[in-house]
Amino acid sequence: MKRLLVIGIGAGDPDHLTLQGAKAIAAADVFFLVDKGEAKQELVRLRQDLIEAHGRGPYRIVEARDPERDRTTPAYAEAVEDWRSRRSQVYERLIRDELEDGRTGAFLVWGDPGVYDSTLAILEEVLERGHVTFDHEVIPGISSVSALTARHRVGLTRVARPVHLTTGRRLAEEGATADDVVVMLDAHCSFAGAGADFHIYWGAYLGTPDEILVSGPVPEVAGRIRELRAEARARKGWIMDTYLLRRLTPPA
Amino acid sequence: MKRLLVIGIGAGDPDHLTLQGAKAIAAADVFFLVDKGEAKQELVRLRQDLIEAHGRGPYRIVEARDPERDRTTPAYAEAVEDWRSRRSQVYERLIRDELEDGRTGAFLVWGDPGVYDSTLAILEEVLERGHVTFDHEVIPGISSVSALTARHRVGLTRVARPVHLTTGRRLAEEGATADDVVVMLDAHCSFAGAGADFHIYWGAYLGTPDEILVSGPVPEVAGRIRELRAEARARKGWIMDTYLLRRLTPPA
Ligand SMILES: C[S@@+](CC[C@H](N)C(=O)[O-])C[C@H]1O[C@@H](n2cnc3c(N)ncnc32)[C@H](O)[C@@H]1O
Ligand SMILES: C[S@@+](CC[C@H](N)C(=O)[O-])C[C@H]1O[C@@H](n2cnc3c(N)ncnc32)[C@H](O)[C@@H]1O
Repeated sequence: MKRLLVIGIGAGDPDHLTLQGAKAIAAADVFFLVDKGEAKQELVRLRQDLIEAHGRGPYRIVEARDPERDRTTPAYAEAVEDWRSRRSQVYERLIRDELEDGRTGAFLVWGDPGVYDSTLAILEEVLERGHVTFDHEVIPGISSVSALTARHRVGLTRVARPVHLTTGRRLAEEGATADDVVVMLDAHCSFAGAGADFHIYWGAYLGTPDEILVSGPVPEVAGRIRELRAEARARKGWIMDTYLLRRLTPPA
Repeated sequence: MKRLLVIGIGAGDPDHLTLQGAKAIAAADVFFLVDKGEAKQELVRLRQDLIEAHGRGPYRIVEARDPERDRTTPAYAEAVEDWRSRRSQVYERLIRDELEDGRTGAFLVWGDPGVYDSTLAILEEVLERGHVTFDHEVIPGISSVSALTARHRVGLTRVARPVHLTTGRRLAEEGATADDVVVMLDAHCSFAGAGADFHIYWGAYLGTPDEILVSGPVPEVAGRIRELRAEARARKGWIMDTYLLRRLTPPA
């Protein structure tokens, strides 16, 4: 049997790694680094650093190129699912050709593998196709949501209240669906559409040396976040940001 | 200045601790263990084990008794807020009397400090009262939500979809407010009220040797979860469980 570990590595700080994650890295014989071919070399570098720090030889690193995603279509979910299906063929090939029976392979996943990440769905698709079999285990990681609230020293949830986790696209379409909403994958500063009674806790490059934090009433800080975001993005070539919207005076 | 570290220790497995959490434990001079006086001795023991494993002497452990919460009133949010206010007086006293200037104190918080935990709100209340001042830092931890989805090897979120995080009480009152809902703090198996088209991923004592996992369509597994839950609770004297409800055939 082949064994796969899907390891959450945290959201940017190498010390987000858990002891369980470090042990999993130490147990792996092969690391699969699937490169998105984007400007985010630092994201690849964090993975390499973690392998170097916690890997126990002999191990191999196998790099592969992720298929391109169609970013032009407005049908976001379909485009992502099509992309996932093409990625699953890449993953199938890696597992079939690069991992011997009895060996342990590892995927190092950004943040927590459960949060807006396709690795688990891709592996399910590979298993369903039935061309290769394997056992797999998932190691939870610090998500950017946990990193965000920790850095702002606020709770994600308030007493006896729900919190919604959603995407920038949905926020733009639906508005804030609760008094507490966390938004990820937002390329368009959709927070500006939240009502004037929302407070925002925003964070970019959380856990990294480039971390930026801004918080305050949306009407007061929206402009500053836009500027900081555009400037950082231009400087680094990419940005990762997330935020919590909190209505401070909820309607009775 | 006094310094406080609010350290997320993960949801039951000592290896959920992050490297950042281990370093924070090593940096602390005083650990505050606030005992809820309940049957959950194992929860206290995990904290003691982590201090022993990662603490760097000399350090002190200061134990205090948490005030009782009024569990009889139906006004849940008010009871929790009143309780929080009384707890903040205990915390204030600890910080004032048991932590010298220039020293570092630590609170070890179950799971992630952002997820349904009052420590951060209590510390804000202490700061607002203004009788003591301190700097504080929050170290994110693996929440029981991340532990749950990892153990079931499923995503918390599906592509381009939101997920709602809520309490058992709210689920009972409002039903499932989305196709993906995570429920915590549910003493009454409120999942039984979710529609027949929901799948449940349920976990109790996640990350511990007593862990129980059940998944399946709600109508098929609800009875078994109830039984396992009642039996485990009777045997151990307490239970912690959480679950993800996922509508597998969402209405178009
Ligand atoms: C594809 S999702 C992956 C999320 C990841 N699995 C997690 O647990 O955080 C990418 C989104 O996560 C958020 N994100 C990830 N890392 C971040 C960081 N270090 N700082 C701010 N946002 C981050 C951003 O919203 C980004 O668009
Ligand atoms: C007061 S909240 C604290 C949550 C914690 N801060 C976290 O991040 O998981 C307690 C609730 O968390 C959930 N929980 C915490 N630890 C758990 C575990 N090991 N297994 C299952 N559920 C757990 C249960 O729903 C429980 O009622």
